[in-house]
Amino acid sequence: MSLQVGLDLIGIFVFAITGALVGVRKQLDVFGIQVLALVTGLGGGFIRDVLIGATPPAALADWRYLSVPVAAGLITFFLHPGIGRVERLVNIFDAAGLGLFCVTGALKALAFGLPPLSAALVGTISGIGGGVIRDVLSGRVPVVLRREIYATPAFLGAGLVVVAYTLGLHAPWVAVTAAAICTLIRLLAIRRGWNAPIPRPA
Amino acid sequence: MSLQVGLDLIGIFVFAITGALVGVRKQLDVFGIQVLALVTGLGGGFIRDVLIGATPPAALADWRYLSVPVAAGLITFFLHPGIGRVERLVNIFDAAGLGLFCVTGALKALAFGLPPLSAALVGTISGIGGGVIRDVLSGRVPVVLRREIYATPAFLGAGLVVVAYTLGLHAPWVAVTAAAICTLIRLLAIRRGWNAPIPRPA
Amino acid sequence: MSLQVGLDLIGIFVFAITGALVGVRKQLDVFGIQVLALVTGLGGGFIRDVLIGATPPAALADWRYLSVPVAAGLITFFLHPGIGRVERLVNIFDAAGLGLFCVTGALKALAFGLPPLSAALVGTISGIGGGVIRDVLSGRVPVVLRREIYATPAFLGAGLVVVAYTLGLHAPWVAVTAAAICTLIRLLAIRRGWNAPIPRPA
Repeated sequence: MSLQVGLDLIGIFVFAITGALVGVRKQLDVFGIQVLALVTGLGGGFIRDVLIGATPPAALADWRYLSVPVAAGLITFFLHPGIGRVERLVNIFDAAGLGLFCVTGALKALAFGLPPLSAALVGTISGIGGGVIRDVLSGRVPVVLRREIYATPAFLGAGLVVVAYTLGLHAPWVAVTAAAICTLIRLLAIRRGWNAPIPRPA
Repeated sequence: MSLQVGLDLIGIFVFAITGALVGVRKQLDVFGIQVLALVTGLGGGFIRDVLIGATPPAALADWRYLSVPVAAGLITFFLHPGIGRVERLVNIFDAAGLGLFCVTGALKALAFGLPPLSAALVGTISGIGGGVIRDVLSGRVPVVLRREIYATPAFLGAGLVVVAYTLGLHAPWVAVTAAAICTLIRLLAIRRGWNAPIPRPA
Repeated sequence: MSLQVGLDLIGIFVFAITGALVGVRKQLDVFGIQVLALVTGLGGGFIRDVLIGATPPAALADWRYLSVPVAAGLITFFLHPGIGRVERLVNIFDAAGLGLFCVTGALKALAFGLPPLSAALVGTISGIGGGVIRDVLSGRVPVVLRREIYATPAFLGAGLVVVAYTLGLHAPWVAVTAAAICTLIRLLAIRRGWNAPIPRPA
């Protein structure tokens, strides 16, 4: 299994968990929870594959991809924590998925011949896509528009791996490190309330 | 006209009716109603065709496809029932569209060479797509996340036709029966309040 | 630079401004404003390119496309007017983008071999797409479903340029005029409260 596929599957798993957790919080039934798990887990990859012309998306062409979000949905349904701790877990798993997907998205875009900045943007879109779809479907303010920075760490992670690969650094630890940096920055942003300047009052 | 195209057009028609009915309920003008009719009628097919790489989507390449949702929009604008009965009609026509689209989506995916489980998932996504777009645009809770099962009958219908075709059963009645089973289960779910287990209270 | 690319870039710029203005109004930080600027500026073109099979979308394959919405976002962040005048500016820039995108969308669809009516529909979808994505993400009622006509002027502009091109009129002024007509009609509709018949009370 290639590095990009491996990181992709882990990313699908953790994003699916966030979708299922949101479903638990909204008291959906097991099928509704499963739908949110599938949509959040696979959404970012679908958008990425459609944009770079890699259709049908990886998750549709290979059934093993589908078992991952289904497993995540079932695990969450049976082992979810109390409602009070759901939001915190959503943030943690979402940050993990963000890091993994921004890197795999950028890598796949590079493999498809996109120029570096474009690959970084595809990585960013892959990273934020699943969470945005999850939030729009469940009626929450999209995470990418909330106070703590979200797209910025994703763009940073995608950009780091693009720069490294352009410089010829193809070792697996490069991608994993970039993903970890993105996840760490996102988690720090949540913990410390990092946000950026807002427009001056008019 | 092939079976898949015929069922597709009927599915577009009934889904477009649900979009127009929602527009009537929200007191939109005839153009807003027409937009919802077009988006709901064609949305599922667009998503399906983009995912399996069949671009441009059938409805864009063939103008006859476009006349169907336009007709549905106009018919609904002039012949709509009282507001009190709109929601019930939305459910009925939506269930019909769900059955038709989950089957045509699965058939088209098989024709494009997707493996069976992937084709069943494409069918499910085709079936639920139009209704979800309609609900997100009009500010309703997406039908796929409400109490009564929605994606499950779609997956069942898609799965049935995929299994049958894999076994060599290509007769038209197979697809029509799978669509009818999906529609029936969805209608029964609404009538009897069928839903699935919800997470245990935390 | 071709006409279609030039009009595209101007359209991206003005649509990105509307996204950034909505971000200012919602008091988002500079990154949230930038996200809305990028999504609104590029959204219509992404949908267009995906539908006609022109992947990866122009904006992803050419980094110069990306600098336009980023510039729009920064300009708006620093030079935005008082909150009370934001909505009026959103309407004006959005009408400009609508005109430009409905025309460039139709032109690109024709260039990709779509039949005339289909090209007009692609143009309409390109025109309305960015604004709809912007509104759904920021929790506003989608502009295409509000009282003043929106999709109709887009369809008219797209239709005009399709008819002209089919008749062999390829001069640049044709496209520019069609865009201007769409924009003008949309602005007049807002100013005069033009709307269409609503369904009879039930």
